[in-house]
Amino acid sequence: MASTTEILEKILTSPPSAPQGIAYNYLVPNIRGLETMVKTLQVKGAQASGYPTPAASPQSEQSPTSTSASNSSEISLFAAATETFSQKNTNCSIAESLERCKPIMELAKQNNIRVRGYVSVALGCPYEGPDVDPHKVAEITATLLEMGCDEVSVADTTGMGTAPRTQKLLQTLKEAGILEEDLALHFHDTYGMALVNTVVGLEHGVRIFDSSVGGLGGCPYSNVATEDLIHLLHSLGCETGVDMVKMAEIGDWITKELNRPDDSRAGKATLARIKG
Amino acid sequence: MASTTEILEKILTSPPSAPQGIAYNYLVPNIRGLETMVKTLQVKGAQASGYPTPAASPQSEQSPTSTSASNSSEISLFAAATETFSQKNTNCSIAESLERCKPIMELAKQNNIRVRGYVSVALGCPYEGPDVDPHKVAEITATLLEMGCDEVSVADTTGMGTAPRTQKLLQTLKEAGILEEDLALHFHDTYGMALVNTVVGLEHGVRIFDSSVGGLGGCPYSNVATEDLIHLLHSLGCETGVDMVKMAEIGDWITKELNRPDDSRAGKATLARIKG
Repeated sequence: MASTTEILEKILTSPPSAPQGIAYNYLVPNIRGLETMVKTLQVKGAQASGYPTPAASPQSEQSPTSTSASNSSEISLFAAATETFSQKNTNCSIAESLERCKPIMELAKQNNIRVRGYVSVALGCPYEGPDVDPHKVAEITATLLEMGCDEVSVADTTGMGTAPRTQKLLQTLKEAGILEEDLALHFHDTYGMALVNTVVGLEHGVRIFDSSVGGLGGCPYSNVATEDLIHLLHSLGCETGVDMVKMAEIGDWITKELNRPDDSRAGKATLARIKG
Repeated sequence: MASTTEILEKILTSPPSAPQGIAYNYLVPNIRGLETMVKTLQVKGAQASGYPTPAASPQSEQSPTSTSASNSSEISLFAAATETFSQKNTNCSIAESLERCKPIMELAKQNNIRVRGYVSVALGCPYEGPDVDPHKVAEITATLLEMGCDEVSVADTTGMGTAPRTQKLLQTLKEAGILEEDLALHFHDTYGMALVNTVVGLEHGVRIFDSSVGGLGGCPYSNVATEDLIHLLHSLGCETGVDMVKMAEIGDWITKELNRPDDSRAGKATLARIKG
């Protein structure tokens, strides 16, 4: 595996072809990470006119439209909702981790880089259990937004979240003056509750939900699969702009490439249906 | 695999030990199946005083309380919600399949055997697609109840069911005069929608939900796992009387015995948590 810097340079200088621009998000654990990223971005800025052309599609090999993809870069900052998780994961208190975010935020803003905040273990902590204080989550979320985050993703890192506690948390965030449009929700499907909790989020007006193709990733708790989330959203009449069949094919492909189980139900069922 | 008759005789004459009585449910495809069952039950009835004693627990080897388990037997009748599925699955029309149910029902009632009806493909048919007429489902459900079914399980056999269509179906059943307490819901998790649809069912007052340990079975569409259903119900504050850890252990054990994947998320996560 290449280092983060190598991956960043590769994406900035020769990104994979895509019909539309992609927002690449980088987790920035400290100011040095962002300094490296800014340097790489500046090199890229100097070469802006030489921004690599995505591979043209077969039928339009020299078409100028295929060069219009404009990627963007954004960063993510993390805070935890419990002191124990904060200490174990980042070796500092919640307050200290928020202090560390400040110079990163400033440097990002100076360079017009979009910043996404995360509040992890917001609905359950592996050390402190399921009953995480929703007021603490609201306080950290508000702090991250006031600091300048463009959006904060409230994360059920352990998958312990339930519908009643998700509801309570969203109600508490609302009462703390946090707007739905500044929020994202990040559910893990460890206990199979991700989609039920997503419905609660939708009912509260949240429209941004994190997921991963084939349920890949997780640390180590399984992410909700993009395919399952998309299927749910479409079933409720939401427009996502995502082609379910193509998403299912991508999930099938990448999980095989990585030799990992495909944790999506809707993806596998969709492929079985079109093959059947 | 032993024949149904052998399994039935085995369960009636030397059932596995259990702390509480178990209701064994047999799918009866035709009158001959029930005739065989009634004969076996009558033999058992003649030996009622000799009803086998469940294996005593180690600490109470001769305790009379361990002999109190009283099992019961019930049967299931099937009808399909679409003509194509009915023809392909049972080689007759829906009306014919309901006619065939009548003598089975009579014989069951004469012998005090509880009868459960099923309406399969109620939220999606592999031949006719997802838009199954909810009025047709209501008509079949009403017919089965009028015929004498003690309960009718409305089944999303293909897992195509969505929250809006589940809602529409339950509304239609209610408008047809069918009571929630006569209904059960049977969801498959093929597309990952089973728990979201279960919440819709709960909201409509249904309290009986089918599931299978580890998501085993299915034909071939995966059943919702009992462990996931139990976790959802407990998360919503419902009492089930089921011990989640023991259920997860059973799921782990039986899927290993059968060399099948454990399709339950909550079961695996529960075991990982207590081992962790």
